[in-house]
Amino acid sequence: MGSTIPPAQHARLLCRQNLLTNTAGIAPGYLQANLLVLPAKYASDFHDLCLRNPVPCPLLGMTADPGDPSAVRPAECIQSSDFDVRTDFPRYRIYSGGKLMDSRSDLLEVWGNDHVAFLIGCSFSFENALTAAGLPPRHQATGTLVAMYRSNIPLLPAGVFTGGNCIVSMRPYRPEEIEEVRAITRAYRLTHGEPVAWGWDGARQLGIVDVNKPDFGQPQPFKEGEVPVFWACGVTPQMAVEAAGDKIKGLVFAHEPGHMLITDLTSEALQSSKPETI
Amino acid sequence: MGSTIPPAQHARLLCRQNLLTNTAGIAPGYLQANLLVLPAKYASDFHDLCLRNPVPCPLLGMTADPGDPSAVRPAECIQSSDFDVRTDFPRYRIYSGGKLMDSRSDLLEVWGNDHVAFLIGCSFSFENALTAAGLPPRHQATGTLVAMYRSNIPLLPAGVFTGGNCIVSMRPYRPEEIEEVRAITRAYRLTHGEPVAWGWDGARQLGIVDVNKPDFGQPQPFKEGEVPVFWACGVTPQMAVEAAGDKIKGLVFAHEPGHMLITDLTSEALQSSKPETI
Repeated sequence: MGSTIPPAQHARLLCRQNLLTNTAGIAPGYLQANLLVLPAKYASDFHDLCLRNPVPCPLLGMTADPGDPSAVRPAECIQSSDFDVRTDFPRYRIYSGGKLMDSRSDLLEVWGNDHVAFLIGCSFSFENALTAAGLPPRHQATGTLVAMYRSNIPLLPAGVFTGGNCIVSMRPYRPEEIEEVRAITRAYRLTHGEPVAWGWDGARQLGIVDVNKPDFGQPQPFKEGEVPVFWACGVTPQMAVEAAGDKIKGLVFAHEPGHMLITDLTSEALQSSKPETI
Repeated sequence: MGSTIPPAQHARLLCRQNLLTNTAGIAPGYLQANLLVLPAKYASDFHDLCLRNPVPCPLLGMTADPGDPSAVRPAECIQSSDFDVRTDFPRYRIYSGGKLMDSRSDLLEVWGNDHVAFLIGCSFSFENALTAAGLPPRHQATGTLVAMYRSNIPLLPAGVFTGGNCIVSMRPYRPEEIEEVRAITRAYRLTHGEPVAWGWDGARQLGIVDVNKPDFGQPQPFKEGEVPVFWACGVTPQMAVEAAGDKIKGLVFAHEPGHMLITDLTSEALQSSKPETI
């Protein structure tokens, strides 16, 4: 029976039943998505925030109507009618007044009749491409969480979302590898694309004092001669919610880091996608 | 006869004949566009730069084929078959190796068989909306060029375009006017949208030490209690070319500031435009 269900839908059903504890390496080739759920009155502002900051906040899709947890547009994102954004991520975070309050395996009891969900691109897809090119990210070899830092790159504000900064993830590479690493990840425009800064100068420009003390995730070991390479990171939208603080009334939900949604979008389809008009 | 030609095309023909010395206030309601022209080998990188930095570099359109100065996509931008990007701006700048070399009234003698032209949104359209709301930009009252500054907001790099920063323009407003100013300009997403920073704290965050000493344009007088409000500025792409320096081989062209292209796009059409899929 399982073999007749498309692999992404199969993975989503496992997450719904809480049979997957994290989504790293699950359903290779299918894009994974970060989540942010807001009361409808802030949806337009957050939509603008994504359009103004597409590198840290690349918008893959959103639920079509406030309160409806099942219909997602564009339709290519989720191609099954059996979908529920409240259950089909493995794990969720609950925010109130900009503060993290709780972590849960579903949102069934907290979802309101005006919540709108946004699906945001995740770096897993370009990491697969780096690995395929013989340039695997260090945290895959060490079996740890990627190192993440608050940078001094401001998020360009949108409505209620002011005062946020771009979060960056870091992977060590040799200086002579950087142009290839940039070229490989450039194509993954909807999953953060090419690095935002690199090298020890790049770290200083981002305001990162000590790469061995990440703000999130785990420190990554450097081999001799390696330098840090920084990408925009999908944790940024959650930090934008924290920065907005109690300007946002009502509950906000996000995915638990590492616990993403498996979408029906493929890396191949995404790489070839360009805005159709321009 | 003139009355049968659409107003934007009429204005373009006047620019072609060098009968308009600048385009401020010309063809109200029609969007004006900034210009950047590059050899084809850098076009993909610059396209990525615009998509990664849509607030300072909002892409309205581009020429359809290298070397062809007449066809623009999307077709809505220029709705006449009688168009030539080499002549229909009032005045042009010529760059070589990242340095400004010359200013000319047309590009006929310097245009190459692999040049690609990019049309980029300009703040004139949101300025009209501010004026209509009783919040006219100060430089319109003083009859001077808007004040512009190099900010410390990095342009997120794309290929050959590294090391650039966002240029910002400044208009003084009273603190209690700022939320209305933000709301009015937010809708103009393809012409820089809402401010990127405001207030004296905002100036400091952008690294602007003295608002009375702009890097481009002219200083603007403040009335008592007014504070600076900063928008991303269409001069940014030219600064990205300067930052790329001699990594770009061949001639690069831009519009002369204040000397824009009148497009067939209207502010009304633009305000209602949203990405169709999401």
